[in-house]
Amino acid sequence: MENKKIKAGVVGATGYAGAELCRILCGHPGAELTAISSVSFEGQKLSDVYPAYFKMCDLVCETQEAVVERCDVIFAALPHGLSQELAAQCQTAGKAFIDLGADFRLEDEDVYREWYAGEFLDKGLHQKAVYGLPEFFREQIRGKRLIANPGCYTTAVPLALAPALEAGLADTQGIVADCKSGVTGAGRKTTQNTHYPELNEGFTAYKVAAHRHTPEMEQTLSRLSGTDIRLTFVPHLLPVNRGILATCYARLKPGATLAQLREAYRSRYDGEFFVRLLPEGRVADIRNVRYSNFCDLSLHVDERTGTLVAVSAIDNMVKGAAGQAVQNMNLAFGLDEAAGLKLFPPAF
Amino acid sequence: MENKKIKAGVVGATGYAGAELCRILCGHPGAELTAISSVSFEGQKLSDVYPAYFKMCDLVCETQEAVVERCDVIFAALPHGLSQELAAQCQTAGKAFIDLGADFRLEDEDVYREWYAGEFLDKGLHQKAVYGLPEFFREQIRGKRLIANPGCYTTAVPLALAPALEAGLADTQGIVADCKSGVTGAGRKTTQNTHYPELNEGFTAYKVAAHRHTPEMEQTLSRLSGTDIRLTFVPHLLPVNRGILATCYARLKPGATLAQLREAYRSRYDGEFFVRLLPEGRVADIRNVRYSNFCDLSLHVDERTGTLVAVSAIDNMVKGAAGQAVQNMNLAFGLDEAAGLKLFPPAF
Amino acid sequence: MENKKIKAGVVGATGYAGAELCRILCGHPGAELTAISSVSFEGQKLSDVYPAYFKMCDLVCETQEAVVERCDVIFAALPHGLSQELAAQCQTAGKAFIDLGADFRLEDEDVYREWYAGEFLDKGLHQKAVYGLPEFFREQIRGKRLIANPGCYTTAVPLALAPALEAGLADTQGIVADCKSGVTGAGRKTTQNTHYPELNEGFTAYKVAAHRHTPEMEQTLSRLSGTDIRLTFVPHLLPVNRGILATCYARLKPGATLAQLREAYRSRYDGEFFVRLLPEGRVADIRNVRYSNFCDLSLHVDERTGTLVAVSAIDNMVKGAAGQAVQNMNLAFGLDEAAGLKLFPPAF
Amino acid sequence: MENKKIKAGVVGATGYAGAELCRILCGHPGAELTAISSVSFEGQKLSDVYPAYFKMCDLVCETQEAVVERCDVIFAALPHGLSQELAAQCQTAGKAFIDLGADFRLEDEDVYREWYAGEFLDKGLHQKAVYGLPEFFREQIRGKRLIANPGCYTTAVPLALAPALEAGLADTQGIVADCKSGVTGAGRKTTQNTHYPELNEGFTAYKVAAHRHTPEMEQTLSRLSGTDIRLTFVPHLLPVNRGILATCYARLKPGATLAQLREAYRSRYDGEFFVRLLPEGRVADIRNVRYSNFCDLSLHVDERTGTLVAVSAIDNMVKGAAGQAVQNMNLAFGLDEAAGLKLFPPAF
Repeated sequence: MENKKIKAGVVGATGYAGAELCRILCGHPGAELTAISSVSFEGQKLSDVYPAYFKMCDLVCETQEAVVERCDVIFAALPHGLSQELAAQCQTAGKAFIDLGADFRLEDEDVYREWYAGEFLDKGLHQKAVYGLPEFFREQIRGKRLIANPGCYTTAVPLALAPALEAGLADTQGIVADCKSGVTGAGRKTTQNTHYPELNEGFTAYKVAAHRHTPEMEQTLSRLSGTDIRLTFVPHLLPVNRGILATCYARLKPGATLAQLREAYRSRYDGEFFVRLLPEGRVADIRNVRYSNFCDLSLHVDERTGTLVAVSAIDNMVKGAAGQAVQNMNLAFGLDEAAGLKLFPPAF
Repeated sequence: MENKKIKAGVVGATGYAGAELCRILCGHPGAELTAISSVSFEGQKLSDVYPAYFKMCDLVCETQEAVVERCDVIFAALPHGLSQELAAQCQTAGKAFIDLGADFRLEDEDVYREWYAGEFLDKGLHQKAVYGLPEFFREQIRGKRLIANPGCYTTAVPLALAPALEAGLADTQGIVADCKSGVTGAGRKTTQNTHYPELNEGFTAYKVAAHRHTPEMEQTLSRLSGTDIRLTFVPHLLPVNRGILATCYARLKPGATLAQLREAYRSRYDGEFFVRLLPEGRVADIRNVRYSNFCDLSLHVDERTGTLVAVSAIDNMVKGAAGQAVQNMNLAFGLDEAAGLKLFPPAF
Repeated sequence: MENKKIKAGVVGATGYAGAELCRILCGHPGAELTAISSVSFEGQKLSDVYPAYFKMCDLVCETQEAVVERCDVIFAALPHGLSQELAAQCQTAGKAFIDLGADFRLEDEDVYREWYAGEFLDKGLHQKAVYGLPEFFREQIRGKRLIANPGCYTTAVPLALAPALEAGLADTQGIVADCKSGVTGAGRKTTQNTHYPELNEGFTAYKVAAHRHTPEMEQTLSRLSGTDIRLTFVPHLLPVNRGILATCYARLKPGATLAQLREAYRSRYDGEFFVRLLPEGRVADIRNVRYSNFCDLSLHVDERTGTLVAVSAIDNMVKGAAGQAVQNMNLAFGLDEAAGLKLFPPAF
Repeated sequence: MENKKIKAGVVGATGYAGAELCRILCGHPGAELTAISSVSFEGQKLSDVYPAYFKMCDLVCETQEAVVERCDVIFAALPHGLSQELAAQCQTAGKAFIDLGADFRLEDEDVYREWYAGEFLDKGLHQKAVYGLPEFFREQIRGKRLIANPGCYTTAVPLALAPALEAGLADTQGIVADCKSGVTGAGRKTTQNTHYPELNEGFTAYKVAAHRHTPEMEQTLSRLSGTDIRLTFVPHLLPVNRGILATCYARLKPGATLAQLREAYRSRYDGEFFVRLLPEGRVADIRNVRYSNFCDLSLHVDERTGTLVAVSAIDNMVKGAAGQAVQNMNLAFGLDEAAGLKLFPPAF
């Protein structure tokens, strides 16, 4: 069997998303974590960087080239801007490439230029790229070899709002996405505002109405609703390690009811293993999805103001990054979409 | 001098708001914490309930009657519904009464009945009550003897939104108040969802668009803006002890600019010691106001959608409860409004 | 295959240890979680009590009797004192019984009486019971049908100290075990001192030199060292959900060196998958074993005072409870000892 | 009055200890925070570095020279090794100097050389220095102009153990100090192990039996007990901002009882405002001393092993650093020793 397994590699394995990918891939029945790379820790074991991995994943960090050469699929967890060249190398080498960065997420180069101050180095390559949000674009992902894995906020917000917009139950104007993220979303690099004593017992917003995920979630919602959507997105930093809670507000169309909304979401997500539409009365909570690939979803209506409040919760490192990337690999290689991803969230 | 000090008493001293009141009053130069009461801990020292208070406040909990009899001003930190009778006793006894509960906050009995399922036992008494949000209703508070202290959310949200609405820079329709509160706001009573392992590393919304503070903040904003305001209010529970961050969204009137907004807020809060309008580029953070009576305020504009994002941060136990109550006492008794309240927030 | 799986049941499934057992058993390749019971939640789904389990474990809580009847092995996660009767029922029914409580841990009834104020209801049953700490008593556990699963502290401390005592490198007198536990160790029942605001940012010791685990760890170390050991054990409560760090102090025998100690531990734990003896220079940390069945171990020598400092870290819910119970099931039923227990600890 | 106030200055004001000093000095009735310095933030306001201080302490960071010139007393919160020269400058300028670093704490240059790899640049200066632990060395501190402020652990451990040793109730051999510190003790500089996601939910020991505070606490205990004491000291890092809990173990002398111990501690600390000897049955907890200058102390006896367990709790930033420094200033300048230090610890 072993030789039938997909050979998976991770470039940028020592960052948080990369390390989480390694953890998930080590438990995948149809894939084998074959090679990893890290610029900062080349030659060191992953378990030297993360002692939690001792005896579970003691692979040594090699070069990008070694990873591309020895693997069937290459996951990249790199800072924005570093993936385009690697993607080209993978294409040349005939290897599948799944990018956890932002380089291939935006279809419009002008938008990319505006928000990332970067260029599309190879427009043909960008045309080949598919946006990897399986619950919405599953068919386009199947069999593909260049997949742009969505960001964390850009997974949580569209999953919370799309069905209402697709069903025409909510207004496409005046949408607000108030999101709260755990600290792992800020990455492994130390900063003053993620220094324990300066984050603990604190809570604030950042990049108010100026976060790069804004155009990405607008792109997804516009595609799905068929109208040009602009929304107000404000991220906040939570003093927890993992999880994103997206509290999304949209004005209801006249006459729209909670029952209609629930039915629209139920039918939209019918059969989606990773989306858990909560029973009425429950509210999505990040603690229930930690370490899992689930997106919990709760729907609420403010009848006094005619407003839909859709709340989604994901683990930013799993459904918001590494887990969704593996879900995309499963689709790209024709495996069971949930293979290696039936991660049981602990209750505490 | 001692005999010139105001004799202050706290009914419900062993709850969080009551205990915080005791702590603040013990440091007040013009008041003396004279008597405290607690139904659950009558006969015990406050420092037996809160060992942190050992040698700083070892008063013994007595009866309500004892407090009313021996004090000039009685603060009540009781569950909703229990203050009306006590207020009447205080009036009869000619004592000032400052209620940290909700019994006297709402002017319209129908609204009170709808949200609290209660009655106004003595309508005359309610007419005498003044709403104690000093930054907005200072003149009405001076010299009064029956003051309804605002709730925590209902302090944070109006302070964030009022100047924009008063200046006609924001639309009174479609306002969203997405608020996040520390756990002390839930009180001292143990519950499953505040049991450490079930809250730690978690984050969720509660009472979505159904929280009792909704009509109270609408009442304040309607009074100040002169129009009937209804907004969508969603509270969330933060895994921190103290603090409320209110992220408030309002559509800007055409042409309204950040400069105009900043000017409106600057002039509105000019001379307000407890409101800190942050310089452009800063964002309000609960960690900067902990243990203080400050309200930090930051203003942001989403020009892509024409939305004002006003963020306020307070300590829910201080400016959101006990501190504001003392601020009201200072006004009622003609003391320096900041007496005993120049609490220096620690940086960590 | 399905019918070949061991039918496993959990009595007391809605407590923390019981819920963790369910989570682990759901991922066990050789066992099937067949029935669960709960007195408090009979008739409700486990996922109603723990929404994190939604779609992963929606079993309904039944009666103890139903669990005993339908399962091959019954795990009990009950308050102390309630297991003896259940154990008798299981024996009568010919079912295997693994007790996570303390009823069968102590061999000496006098000691049990002194620390638990209880009796051995059926001495014969107690003689049949085996103490389930596999790394030390593996051979006695194989094939057994009545297993007393050790406590959390009583797993962490002996694993840290036994090899030094067995090898005669440390003095059996004057041992100190200073232990720190996450809050889940206190169970699901709400208490004032586990109420979030009263535990968060706090840290204290409890049951100083008076904890019931004292005689249990003494029993294990005495058995292994062949001498009667009494030690000083002080537990502390950490503001984290999971994990126990045991910092153990023992006077070194004259001439004993760190090299000798490391060799003794290396040979003692050679081949033990769940014990990770850390390289020199590393220190055991609870964050590296969370959600896993590992026990991390680091050895340190204070040459100035001739003292061994042995530090062990476990997840109190896994190696300290549910994981070890499954490890015992695997031994009792002749499965691979690590089956279902190769749980990969997350790095963050 | 203003002109009668002591002009106080802080060198290294933007570090945690320095910032805490500024906060405390701003509330001191007999001192005025006159000038502060910072190498990293010269020219910036302290409130730009710590927005919590906005409107409370907006002093601009100047040079060391400016601080020495304009102040009567200079507090130094600098990395070890940088204080000796500054102390000399202060002596020349006739200014009082209180050093929060380690340069003047150790009397024996050989010990200093061994643990700090440094030299005594001016032996005469070191002879003038007094060790500033007021509860033990009050009389030597009065009127002095060069004071070495103790470290945090070295305040907590001697306060917990000294009375038992002075009274001859405990053995001076085989003492263990198992200490746990909040993260602020590690300072403001960002490091990987204080990066929020890598400390949160974790707990470990560090510098096991190798921490520089070891010889300092031995020096104090040896001076007080009149015998040469060596102990085993193991510090741990707690996932909280503030506080040190010291769990200290010492073998009791034959016949020594808890009653004798309590009497020894009671008489030793009789009249010490900042030491709170807890009633029997209570255990010291860091949450009860946060933001205060108190040291809480609880005594426990393990009669089974003849061991004293003395537990002390302090705020590492206050009694363990800035608060004690101000206490020393009060003594040096003949003010009420508690002036500006009756800081009321919040209960939550």
